[in-house]
Amino acid sequence: MRVLASYLGGQWRPGHGPELPLVNPATEEVLVQVHSQGQDLGAAVEHGRTAGRSALAELTFAQRGELLSTMAKAIHGAREELISLAVENGGNTRSDAKFDIDGASATLAYYAELGHKLGDGKLLADGEVLQVGRTARMGGTHAWLTRPGLAVHINAFNFPAWGLGEKAACALLAGMPVLSKPATATALVAHRLMELFAPLVPKGALQLLCGPAGDLLDHLGPGDVLAFTGSSATARALRGHRNVIEHSVRLNIEADSLNAAVLGPDVDLGSETGQLFLADALRDMTQKTGQKCTAIRRVLVPAERLDEVAAILAERLATIVVGDPSRDDVRMGPVATAAQLRDVRAGIARLAAETAAVFGGTGEVTPRGIAEGRGFFVGPVLRSTRAPLECGALNDHEVFGPVSTLAAYDGSSAAATAIVARGMGGLVTSVYSDDRDWVARMVTGIGPWHGRLFLGSAKMAAQSPGPGTVLPQLVHGGPGRAGGGEELGGQRGLGFYMQRLALEGDASVLKSLLG
Amino acid sequence: MRVLASYLGGQWRPGHGPELPLVNPATEEVLVQVHSQGQDLGAAVEHGRTAGRSALAELTFAQRGELLSTMAKAIHGAREELISLAVENGGNTRSDAKFDIDGASATLAYYAELGHKLGDGKLLADGEVLQVGRTARMGGTHAWLTRPGLAVHINAFNFPAWGLGEKAACALLAGMPVLSKPATATALVAHRLMELFAPLVPKGALQLLCGPAGDLLDHLGPGDVLAFTGSSATARALRGHRNVIEHSVRLNIEADSLNAAVLGPDVDLGSETGQLFLADALRDMTQKTGQKCTAIRRVLVPAERLDEVAAILAERLATIVVGDPSRDDVRMGPVATAAQLRDVRAGIARLAAETAAVFGGTGEVTPRGIAEGRGFFVGPVLRSTRAPLECGALNDHEVFGPVSTLAAYDGSSAAATAIVARGMGGLVTSVYSDDRDWVARMVTGIGPWHGRLFLGSAKMAAQSPGPGTVLPQLVHGGPGRAGGGEELGGQRGLGFYMQRLALEGDASVLKSLLG
Repeated sequence: MRVLASYLGGQWRPGHGPELPLVNPATEEVLVQVHSQGQDLGAAVEHGRTAGRSALAELTFAQRGELLSTMAKAIHGAREELISLAVENGGNTRSDAKFDIDGASATLAYYAELGHKLGDGKLLADGEVLQVGRTARMGGTHAWLTRPGLAVHINAFNFPAWGLGEKAACALLAGMPVLSKPATATALVAHRLMELFAPLVPKGALQLLCGPAGDLLDHLGPGDVLAFTGSSATARALRGHRNVIEHSVRLNIEADSLNAAVLGPDVDLGSETGQLFLADALRDMTQKTGQKCTAIRRVLVPAERLDEVAAILAERLATIVVGDPSRDDVRMGPVATAAQLRDVRAGIARLAAETAAVFGGTGEVTPRGIAEGRGFFVGPVLRSTRAPLECGALNDHEVFGPVSTLAAYDGSSAAATAIVARGMGGLVTSVYSDDRDWVARMVTGIGPWHGRLFLGSAKMAAQSPGPGTVLPQLVHGGPGRAGGGEELGGQRGLGFYMQRLALEGDASVLKSLLG
Repeated sequence: MRVLASYLGGQWRPGHGPELPLVNPATEEVLVQVHSQGQDLGAAVEHGRTAGRSALAELTFAQRGELLSTMAKAIHGAREELISLAVENGGNTRSDAKFDIDGASATLAYYAELGHKLGDGKLLADGEVLQVGRTARMGGTHAWLTRPGLAVHINAFNFPAWGLGEKAACALLAGMPVLSKPATATALVAHRLMELFAPLVPKGALQLLCGPAGDLLDHLGPGDVLAFTGSSATARALRGHRNVIEHSVRLNIEADSLNAAVLGPDVDLGSETGQLFLADALRDMTQKTGQKCTAIRRVLVPAERLDEVAAILAERLATIVVGDPSRDDVRMGPVATAAQLRDVRAGIARLAAETAAVFGGTGEVTPRGIAEGRGFFVGPVLRSTRAPLECGALNDHEVFGPVSTLAAYDGSSAAATAIVARGMGGLVTSVYSDDRDWVARMVTGIGPWHGRLFLGSAKMAAQSPGPGTVLPQLVHGGPGRAGGGEELGGQRGLGFYMQRLALEGDASVLKSLLG
């Protein structure tokens, strides 16, 4: 059986010790193994901090951008192969796989272009030189400088390509070397990316750990950063890690989120805005089998329209073919792992105890093109409740699969705000309305509980990217339950990897330092 | 005995239970007591989140600025009384007390002016509206919105006025209600400030807890923030608090820092730059009895000048009169508490084991105007080492008193960088040189390990505020050992109290939302 090696310290290292299988989640066939031990992670961290950090420090923003551009092109050149791996190891349909892989190359290309714009410098000025003494000679200003250590990235299983790419794009452009750890279960795509990138990147600038994190965090120090995307249970463990606490290791966490979609009281379901709402609610249940951190989990509908929305969505869900994601006639594949399937089933059971069935029962399904009893399949499940504020299962627990719940509200922005806020912090909520005053009240009410709001309306419906799509231009992350982090957002995304520094002194010295 | 009450839920509440004394650190006379129990902190948190948050949400930035202006004026109007309280309860000389109290009013006035500039809005636009669809109609942008909860401020004993004022200024201008907890030992000044502010601020916008924090943190949720200034031991406990971890409570920490001053190899000690270096090193040992988070703890000197610098500083230190801080002929008072005195003595002992004596022995002193055996006095202590990289006591432990150590280095920016970085993250380091290339290398090398660099040179020497002065225009905080936080810095300081939100939708809707 083939073993996936890690790329650490400039070499491919298979590790040793007990093997963990990577499987095809549609067939449960074992594709490849990873060893669970035997990597010298202390040496890898030091390799990044020294060789990687120095090599990147030699490059200007424009040159780092050029590097990102070659990485984006390498993905594009291997697109078909990567899509096949994502179908095989991720349970993705081709469309799901493209969303991940094209997302990775597009994000790298976006940051390549940003590097080009930032030009030949190595630090970023932050504001003007201010007078802080009696005369203009005594100045003060700010600049962003590359942090002195290593960026450790721990990525989620659902976006092995985009997760690696979007985090690496910001870190490398900022000048920080990266050690990226994909989720083991779906690491095939990330491993292939590392094979493509290894000849392109400077020594130590990008390393990849396939398999468990081992003692990785024990090696982090005050100049390093740790960015994590995944469950809030793991997030809690990272936050509380002795070393992270001891050294104030800078942490960015993107965790659970009970993203909502809110249908405004003014919207007719037959209108462009109404159709956008229905299409978004449906897409987010089934795209990537509901395994998107941005997927809509709670669908708020004015009480008098609940039955109508339920009927339309149920009708459309009935047309979704679940099965072997490599088939052209299949719309939705399995979830990624056996553990995910157990979690999703448990989540559905929890919802079933507090909500009414609309579609899909508890997710039983006969997948097309799959031998009986094989694969991690669950069908789309739509539930509903007319008492959403009292529904713990709705607001306290994210079911990370093709599961969504309709929640009735009275149509007021105040009631919608209370329900959405009950999720205790989220990545994104979408609001569908053409009543600008109502939308403005929603923005004020739920805005502070989110990292992003998507405002669906008739005028943009024809060219909407949908709330579930994370764009490199806009920040991604959210407060509270969502982890309190922030990624991307153009140049904002570099901030995590740089230290903002106040500089005081002779104004002419400050000006020459900032170029 | 008078009891200091807390101002919680709109009322003065004395609490109950065992009493803790606040003393005059020069005489050990008990001035007043606080009760250590009996406050309903859950109710206080909720009062801030509801009444306080709503009241501030009614105000524009300009109106909140007006509020800060009245607070600044209230301090100024009670300046003499506050100075007397700081002398009495803080062991401050008059000059030390002014540094704290005038710092508070100046910072409030600065943010009052910023509020005036920000004008009539309630949210802050962050960048332009970008095109994120096929046409300019589909837009994306960012805005900062007031976070939905309460800001809890836990302040250090050394700056009871400035600490309350600078944190409250940013929070209130951002629209967040504040619950401020001064260090119990020196709470007299903060208590008097609250008496002055209570009639000025909207209901719930500002509360004060005198005495222990009790179960305060157990009441914090995902919309709240916690800003702390103090020791890294307490910082670790806050970071690891179950509730903080569970809800991603946003945390800003300013902790220990082994701030350095670096004398460049080009500088003659008789030059303006050399004199600035000597004056700063001396001031930071004695001002506030060395109890400043920004005080210089490590003084790097080219090896061949070490003896000369030692001789000059020793001569000047010999003129410092230590004693009753209420006397005009006394330059340095006691440290603030008996516990601080024990810690400082232990720190001196630790340094003494690894460094050579220059001045002050181990801090024995006969304070002027004090009855024998009374007060928490320690004299200024200067040590030196010619092997700074190997000196754990120099680089691993901040002695929070009138203690500093000279460290020889070879004059190269590389060696200075290695020693300074060995402090593992600091608030501020000052670099004294008129060699711009040398300074530029220092900025690149040590910049990422700091929140602020002070570049001392001949051209600004006559109007330098000194590295130890925190200005509201410039950020304050630092990575690693310093806690990883950031405060102040003009509008940057509001960011902690606001949520950055990406907004997607019809570009004309976005433009109207942002005003």
